[in-house]
Amino acid sequence: MKTAKIRLYVEHPLGQGQTIALTQAQAHYLFGVMRQGLGDAVLVFNGRNGEWRAEVTEAGKRGGVLIAQEETAVQRDPPDLWLLFAPIKKARTDFIVEKAAEMGAARILPVQTDFTNSERIRQDRLQAHAIEAAEQCGGTFVPEVSDLHRLDRMLDAWPEDRHLMFCDETLADSARTPGAAGTGKWAILIGPEGGFSDAERARIAGLPQARPVSLGPRILRADTAVVAALTLWQITFGDWT
Amino acid sequence: MKTAKIRLYVEHPLGQGQTIALTQAQAHYLFGVMRQGLGDAVLVFNGRNGEWRAEVTEAGKRGGVLIAQEETAVQRDPPDLWLLFAPIKKARTDFIVEKAAEMGAARILPVQTDFTNSERIRQDRLQAHAIEAAEQCGGTFVPEVSDLHRLDRMLDAWPEDRHLMFCDETLADSARTPGAAGTGKWAILIGPEGGFSDAERARIAGLPQARPVSLGPRILRADTAVVAALTLWQITFGDWT
Repeated sequence: MKTAKIRLYVEHPLGQGQTIALTQAQAHYLFGVMRQGLGDAVLVFNGRNGEWRAEVTEAGKRGGVLIAQEETAVQRDPPDLWLLFAPIKKARTDFIVEKAAEMGAARILPVQTDFTNSERIRQDRLQAHAIEAAEQCGGTFVPEVSDLHRLDRMLDAWPEDRHLMFCDETLADSARTPGAAGTGKWAILIGPEGGFSDAERARIAGLPQARPVSLGPRILRADTAVVAALTLWQITFGDWT
Repeated sequence: MKTAKIRLYVEHPLGQGQTIALTQAQAHYLFGVMRQGLGDAVLVFNGRNGEWRAEVTEAGKRGGVLIAQEETAVQRDPPDLWLLFAPIKKARTDFIVEKAAEMGAARILPVQTDFTNSERIRQDRLQAHAIEAAEQCGGTFVPEVSDLHRLDRMLDAWPEDRHLMFCDETLADSARTPGAAGTGKWAILIGPEGGFSDAERARIAGLPQARPVSLGPRILRADTAVVAALTLWQITFGDWT
């Protein structure tokens, strides 16, 4: 039995003996780029049914077939944590999505704030980054990347039972922690590079679900702040403890 | 008195009335790119003497002069924390240096491990990234980026009084913290993408100064691990508390 080195996200349901038809892009990657062939083993996951060792039973230029043989990891979903962030320059936005997937965010929501430059995002491209990060980091879960939402509208309809960890650079010198809000449903909100507007800050501060936190005495770029905030949250409430 | 929007790292000593001759590159940036001119104010810092508001008193294509007028922030050095990391692909190595500077590492040491691909680095380019990150994050300190050192030789001569936080992905499922080692001198060691070799792992585990930690249940890329480990350290021992 060959050892599987490649992890591949697929959309099919997975289970013992399940056949998985590959898309043209997947076939190109597996057989063209990665030089896999008949009888080779690949690890597959779909975000719902754990990770499976599958064997290549058909390999072509335009497609191929895998058969799932053995479950190699059980499905493991992250805590119920959303990440809200304001899109910035393309490379750093890609990076934020990648990092959020690696760090175990359950859902990634790009938000349009008063000082957000970007008025639209390529949701499909960002979703592909989240999938690639999941393939890379050994997880069995892929966070959903939403379309761009307006922050003010999200706050208007903010779920009563979801805490909001609000990372505000104006708090940089006051030591604050998420407090004793406890586990449960959470979201982390990272501001845009230009900060939040006064109106946004007031609106967020007025939300009973909001928990302001400081990310230390230095001003962090948004992409750094995402990883730092996710670390802080995971240590305090998440699956690192 | 004009408001200063630009932060510039300079090498000169800084103090009341100090004149600062600009290099050609600095003059090009300030006057060409950023459209500053005579009488405009710039914030300058040198990593030692705090941050100063300085005024442009000469502006030319090949140079210029600033005069330091008022101290706007006192010098603030980070805790005595080194970051050791194995260089990876260029963009991600740049990113690690930028993030380490933002997150308050005092010294950045690229190390060559058994599974490091890169045999040399561009120290000058990495140092420039650290300077740019300091300019951006509002800090007054610039971490020194060392040349590439061999990890095994560094471990042979490891300082007795410096704890080593060792981030090992084989610990991924066991919850561990840096422990009660306390503040003082520290270093964080982030492994290469291929992990540490068995020899390295044994050598590090044998160091009395070593404190293994886990960065959660998912495998993190090296650049993510750098920010996560620095966050963990800063919360536990550093200047975030």
